[in-house]
Amino acid sequence: MLARVFLTRVIEPGDEIGGRWLGAFGPSEVARRLREGGPPLPGVSEARWTGLRERAVRADPRRDLAVARDAGVRFVAPGNSEWPAQLDDLGDARPTGLWVRGRPSLRMWALRSVAVVGARACTEYGAHMAGTLAAGLAERGWVVVSGGAYGVDGAAHRGALGAGGATVAVLACGVDRPYPRGHTELIGRIAEQGLVVGELPPGDHPTPSRFILRNRVIAALTRGTVVVEAAYRSGSLVTARAAQRLGRFTMGVPGPATSGLSAGVHELLRGEAALVTDAAEVVELVGEIGELAPVRRGPVLPRDLLEPGARRVLAALPARGAPHPREIARGAQTTEDETIARLYELRALGYVERHGDGWKLTRQAMMSVRGGRASR
Amino acid sequence: MLARVFLTRVIEPGDEIGGRWLGAFGPSEVARRLREGGPPLPGVSEARWTGLRERAVRADPRRDLAVARDAGVRFVAPGNSEWPAQLDDLGDARPTGLWVRGRPSLRMWALRSVAVVGARACTEYGAHMAGTLAAGLAERGWVVVSGGAYGVDGAAHRGALGAGGATVAVLACGVDRPYPRGHTELIGRIAEQGLVVGELPPGDHPTPSRFILRNRVIAALTRGTVVVEAAYRSGSLVTARAAQRLGRFTMGVPGPATSGLSAGVHELLRGEAALVTDAAEVVELVGEIGELAPVRRGPVLPRDLLEPGARRVLAALPARGAPHPREIARGAQTTEDETIARLYELRALGYVERHGDGWKLTRQAMMSVRGGRASR
Repeated sequence: MLARVFLTRVIEPGDEIGGRWLGAFGPSEVARRLREGGPPLPGVSEARWTGLRERAVRADPRRDLAVARDAGVRFVAPGNSEWPAQLDDLGDARPTGLWVRGRPSLRMWALRSVAVVGARACTEYGAHMAGTLAAGLAERGWVVVSGGAYGVDGAAHRGALGAGGATVAVLACGVDRPYPRGHTELIGRIAEQGLVVGELPPGDHPTPSRFILRNRVIAALTRGTVVVEAAYRSGSLVTARAAQRLGRFTMGVPGPATSGLSAGVHELLRGEAALVTDAAEVVELVGEIGELAPVRRGPVLPRDLLEPGARRVLAALPARGAPHPREIARGAQTTEDETIARLYELRALGYVERHGDGWKLTRQAMMSVRGGRASR
Repeated sequence: MLARVFLTRVIEPGDEIGGRWLGAFGPSEVARRLREGGPPLPGVSEARWTGLRERAVRADPRRDLAVARDAGVRFVAPGNSEWPAQLDDLGDARPTGLWVRGRPSLRMWALRSVAVVGARACTEYGAHMAGTLAAGLAERGWVVVSGGAYGVDGAAHRGALGAGGATVAVLACGVDRPYPRGHTELIGRIAEQGLVVGELPPGDHPTPSRFILRNRVIAALTRGTVVVEAAYRSGSLVTARAAQRLGRFTMGVPGPATSGLSAGVHELLRGEAALVTDAAEVVELVGEIGELAPVRRGPVLPRDLLEPGARRVLAALPARGAPHPREIARGAQTTEDETIARLYELRALGYVERHGDGWKLTRQAMMSVRGGRASR
């Protein structure tokens, strides 16, 4: 764990050579070799090895963890119970670990998430579509993932937040360091109501290549990627193509044929991407496998595997009626904020659904209870 | 021939039972049975047979031909040298014959044609796209076929005419009787510079079912159909689906996801239709087989098979240079109007191309001349 914290300070996101080292030698050994020097690990020149060694010498994982803790940031690594297993699809480009800010479980939220990405310099139309799509996805219990950037990304996050829904910003810098500056407040709100995640350790800066490589995390984390507006050669198309390669759904929102900001989306739609015009159409696609996948898979759903906080909230829900989170919080002996975060997780797993201002058990959850009892 | 003229007055467009009669007994025999009475031909009730007989009794094909001739309208039937062979793909729903107004050869023009259709109550965006697409197609030597209606159809015809290009209106009424009335002038211009065609004899009225059935002719006549704007259940989608069934290219121009007038197109794009945003993309698709297909097929291209008028115009073109139609007309010993009409036909076959105000032989035409000489 400490070795992986150390490595996020030394190895760049998406570095496949570093990924191969981790697979071959394990994080502790790779960290030791980088710290203690000696001959380079396979696949890098002396010069690159020296560069990595310089970073290694300056790295202080204990201090990084302390700084993170103070900023309300935790470190989630492969093997950790909060690690989203779908990131393993990235192979050697799998993140060394993720820095996470916000209450909910990243693993749970990722299970039922869709990326909404697009142009920074989007049009009014693009912002409108991103916001409407995200709100619609949020209302249907889906988590909206985006990159926290200006334009489409921001509109998507705001749409989800505005609908009282769940959203995740994946940053290309330290998650304690909002970028862009103009989104400091928005990213703060996302951290309050949702999750802000990234591969880079506290205080680290974004770079052009980090922006590009961040996109693979957005693509891998989610069940599908919707591109709202994108010019030719836009970064959002990188996300879409990564999603395609990873076997995720790739979707595009059409726009006027006269708009250069829709040209990239139209190019995508000429290929494998599906044309979508509203949230219902997105859910129809990603829901095919997404809707009840955890139920069918089995190991994720059983109540015994839920973390204790979520289990307590679930136990506080009555068989009938849809109480307000305030009431549920009393039954679960926790805060209302904590309860809301857990309710969203439970929704991601198909246990609960919103009903006006309240929350109730789903039919599936009721059946699983009855089924459980009958089989005893 | 006279029998088919008679039958266009008696049998409704697209009547597949009538089509089967023609296949089984031939037009003369079907006409005789309808005129003389007796037991019904197979597949119709006594009542329907009586209805057809009533029409047959009033039909006067010689008068229809005379009226047509006075209006500058000719009758083109299967077997006629101007008959577009691709209409045979309609099988039993093949038109009995077509009434044609305008100088060019329908057969030649259809070889290199694309349908541009869409909503009558289109938006400014739809009208703009239809006009731009049609102009671009015309500039690339493609004939723009549409239905002469308000909205997208009208914009497409105007776009082609404005670019000095070729356009064909397929009407759901007698071609001497422009419909809609508000397009009297436009349809007149199309008849002057292009072609106005239809299945119905002089003076006949449009009906809802005739509009729908007219669409199959547009689909069959062309290499592909582009739908510009169409609501759900729009008639243009009928044309697009007919094109699809006939193995023609089906294309759609995307629009804002918020526009109800693009919803039908987006539905189409979710299926087999290709997304196109400009004329170059349309030509890239339909040109795959269209561009030089007559050359490869053989029987259409050889100069000996050209009609004498076109052959004279072709012979009047110099090996070098791009003379004005006025000059070519002098060489071909005909009028400038006639020359222009023939030049468009020759362009449809890949013989000539426009060059500023003038016309010149294509490289293919030059090569076919050289090839011809070398092989002697």
